[in-house]
Amino acid sequence: MKTHKTRLIKIGKDIVIGGKEVQIMAGPCTVENYKYTKRSAHACKQAGAKILRGGAYKLRTIPGTFNGLGEKGLKILRKIADEEKMAVVTEVIDVRDIDLVSKYANILQVGERNMQNTVLLEALGKTKIPILLKRGQSAQISELLYAAEYIARKGNKNIILCERGIRTFEKDTRATLALASVPLIKEMCDYPVIVDPSHSTGKPSLIAAMSKAAIAAGADGLIIEVHPEPKKALCDGFQALVPGEFAKLMRELKPVAKAVGRKL
Amino acid sequence: MKTHKTRLIKIGKDIVIGGKEVQIMAGPCTVENYKYTKRSAHACKQAGAKILRGGAYKLRTIPGTFNGLGEKGLKILRKIADEEKMAVVTEVIDVRDIDLVSKYANILQVGERNMQNTVLLEALGKTKIPILLKRGQSAQISELLYAAEYIARKGNKNIILCERGIRTFEKDTRATLALASVPLIKEMCDYPVIVDPSHSTGKPSLIAAMSKAAIAAGADGLIIEVHPEPKKALCDGFQALVPGEFAKLMRELKPVAKAVGRKL
Amino acid sequence: MKTHKTRLIKIGKDIVIGGKEVQIMAGPCTVENYKYTKRSAHACKQAGAKILRGGAYKLRTIPGTFNGLGEKGLKILRKIADEEKMAVVTEVIDVRDIDLVSKYANILQVGERNMQNTVLLEALGKTKIPILLKRGQSAQISELLYAAEYIARKGNKNIILCERGIRTFEKDTRATLALASVPLIKEMCDYPVIVDPSHSTGKPSLIAAMSKAAIAAGADGLIIEVHPEPKKALCDGFQALVPGEFAKLMRELKPVAKAVGRKL
Amino acid sequence: MKTHKTRLIKIGKDIVIGGKEVQIMAGPCTVENYKYTKRSAHACKQAGAKILRGGAYKLRTIPGTFNGLGEKGLKILRKIADEEKMAVVTEVIDVRDIDLVSKYANILQVGERNMQNTVLLEALGKTKIPILLKRGQSAQISELLYAAEYIARKGNKNIILCERGIRTFEKDTRATLALASVPLIKEMCDYPVIVDPSHSTGKPSLIAAMSKAAIAAGADGLIIEVHPEPKKALCDGFQALVPGEFAKLMRELKPVAKAVGRKL
Repeated sequence: MKTHKTRLIKIGKDIVIGGKEVQIMAGPCTVENYKYTKRSAHACKQAGAKILRGGAYKLRTIPGTFNGLGEKGLKILRKIADEEKMAVVTEVIDVRDIDLVSKYANILQVGERNMQNTVLLEALGKTKIPILLKRGQSAQISELLYAAEYIARKGNKNIILCERGIRTFEKDTRATLALASVPLIKEMCDYPVIVDPSHSTGKPSLIAAMSKAAIAAGADGLIIEVHPEPKKALCDGFQALVPGEFAKLMRELKPVAKAVGRKL
Repeated sequence: MKTHKTRLIKIGKDIVIGGKEVQIMAGPCTVENYKYTKRSAHACKQAGAKILRGGAYKLRTIPGTFNGLGEKGLKILRKIADEEKMAVVTEVIDVRDIDLVSKYANILQVGERNMQNTVLLEALGKTKIPILLKRGQSAQISELLYAAEYIARKGNKNIILCERGIRTFEKDTRATLALASVPLIKEMCDYPVIVDPSHSTGKPSLIAAMSKAAIAAGADGLIIEVHPEPKKALCDGFQALVPGEFAKLMRELKPVAKAVGRKL
Repeated sequence: MKTHKTRLIKIGKDIVIGGKEVQIMAGPCTVENYKYTKRSAHACKQAGAKILRGGAYKLRTIPGTFNGLGEKGLKILRKIADEEKMAVVTEVIDVRDIDLVSKYANILQVGERNMQNTVLLEALGKTKIPILLKRGQSAQISELLYAAEYIARKGNKNIILCERGIRTFEKDTRATLALASVPLIKEMCDYPVIVDPSHSTGKPSLIAAMSKAAIAAGADGLIIEVHPEPKKALCDGFQALVPGEFAKLMRELKPVAKAVGRKL
Repeated sequence: MKTHKTRLIKIGKDIVIGGKEVQIMAGPCTVENYKYTKRSAHACKQAGAKILRGGAYKLRTIPGTFNGLGEKGLKILRKIADEEKMAVVTEVIDVRDIDLVSKYANILQVGERNMQNTVLLEALGKTKIPILLKRGQSAQISELLYAAEYIARKGNKNIILCERGIRTFEKDTRATLALASVPLIKEMCDYPVIVDPSHSTGKPSLIAAMSKAAIAAGADGLIIEVHPEPKKALCDGFQALVPGEFAKLMRELKPVAKAVGRKL
């Protein structure tokens, strides 16, 4: 099979996803307050990440659990990103919020639960903003590509795909990171692909190995959760790296990227 | 484990889901036109079904495939249901359409792809209309119950759960109908549970056996696709029963219902 | 699809599997001693089961756990079965034990872990004894039929297939009982099919519902674990019915069998 | 989590699995004849592989398909390995063949279908020969470790574990390569772990990416199918690399190994 030449997705002025440089999106699972988000963002930027991740609107499995600060969270995220000279990726979960979230974000994330929310996908297709589309946990690769096509058909081809693990019988990891999807997607379409080692493993101790593996497999980027005080996190703290671990990981990723002809 | 006494969900004046009577929802996958829908509805009613199913808004995996007639479809559905003295169950896929769809339907269906669309769930929770909540194809039972709780917490406890098969490695059936979820749900909550033998098997030849099994397992109802000319159907015709097969099935279900203390 | 006319498998003089009568195999998971096995067997026979199940050789996941009494267990099983006028089904796990186990058993069981142990299958194919072949927990139905063909090609077509649940992401049940395999197998071959509600659910409270569902779906029999003192059982006691529950279940199964044209 | 210091498994005089050097096992799926095996082995050795793989006894899903040359195949394998100064890994499927296969092989492979064949495992535990234990396609990691313990408890701790993909709903790849098992196993025990990119992907075009990813994730070796004329192969030719592709892969793997502190 021939692989496609990867489409370049420009984020802001200086960042390109899909080019030689592997892009790292990092930050807290959720924007909880200025302080934690700032500490996380600053550490991530220092370590080399150019894109700040953080949720302001969250789809949570259990009702009543913390589901984000909403617009207040978006404002915090934007402010910190500007201070740190980072771009922002954050999730949009409601079709009625697209304009609002677009005011603050550089990339809109569609979470795995919404991968086949075609109402949301088509509405996003009518914007120009880059979309990070996460693979549903029970989606075939062909279904992920159909979801992307829902966006693209409406005119927006600024799409980044994300492998974040599938649901299987495995119990030792939160999901099963199906890394073969990375080269497979590159045979099937030209969208860049990033990998989420945090949600897929659910275990900080496995993130470094899976991050290296993702880059070796050809991923165009990673999205990683980093929290300055994971035990105090309001969401998914159990799977976050602390800033020191993240900085170490970034150092270890450089030679792997180089070994496969990329840089970081 | 003790099972809960099942909550009774009243549909219109005469229909109760969760009581002694097993309720059958039947009709075409999608409302394509008056003629097919009428023929299907009439045959279903004659055979004993009291609730007409049919989609006017469809989430389709592949963009560009037929996704329903929208409000025009709702009008057809309502008209035929009134003619046949049936209730209507139909899917709502967009949070902005809830009021519109509620004007025509007696039960609003949340499809499996939207099971964790909490924006939609919470909006439905603010209505009084009965909700048919389908299990996501990779959802744990506990996650289905959390999704129901998203609706219930906002005030609407008129919830009917639906087992429609999960995604597994099996290739011979469209999904794997996990019937043990029926008695399991009855241990965990008091919502009635129905079963979808059409989408779960994807094969007309398996629908009768799975319908009997579902009732024997304690299901409070079934939702079955019936189309007068399956080969001409615009969506999922391959899995529809023809009216004659459906009538035969209804006759065969009666003694099974009776054998487990139910009627039909 | 047309279903095949089911092949009749004769067990001893009086028992037929695959005919109008649904056959129940019941007894303890493992033969632990004369006393428990006798109490279980006697209660099962009184309630209507004609075939006594019980393991003398067990494949256990964890080394060092109780793996059966070996030939001593076979002797206990045979003695009690003769006293109660029951047939015996028991597992063979080692190709070198086939002759030995055949001296005591009426049906040799191949467990799910050995479904593709072609060395064992071919050796069993050279005997005349009926074989109970359990579906592997990750086996497609076509693979189960290929496994049966390994036996049949060597000359032994006395084969009974068993659906015992597949491994999926579900955590609330021990396995996912994929009941659609019952009518599907009947479309694909003529071997009788039985269902194991004990191993598939792993929960006594779900066994009754799944037993009824299995018979309603067309199963030719059931294999159920019954132990007089489950808490003292050396293997899988958590999923055993006590004799009183089993007797109640047998009474409840009769009308279901009748409703689908069978007897029990 | 702390990772264990990996146990060193010595193969013959010169080869160590689990040390700094990543070991490559390569060769045809099955020994078909001298000519193909020789061409494959010679090319693999020239490219840097030190261990020759090839099956003489095969468990095949479909009866009547080619299942190996038996002892004749073992003789061919040994002769060629000696000519090329390679070690031999080959599968044993029958407990009665252990002595025979051990005469010709340096490593005995237990295939995924036999991972819980405790009769075979315990018999192998009584030998001293290194065992390559493949993960069953529906086995939890804990179950793989229990299987290893069946061998170890009888005295043989020369065990190499192999991740070869699990069975999931994915259809685009033969299995789902669950690479997170590599770092996970290293947290749970001290056995070396190798990865099989051939069986897991079933697609030659994905093997290079997954081989790099495996090494980046910390694997101690790879087992790869190489055939000089894949279209003429009697078994699994569709997933074999040709010698030229394999040589290219070996060159590409070197910098990846170096990037994670290994050599190859």
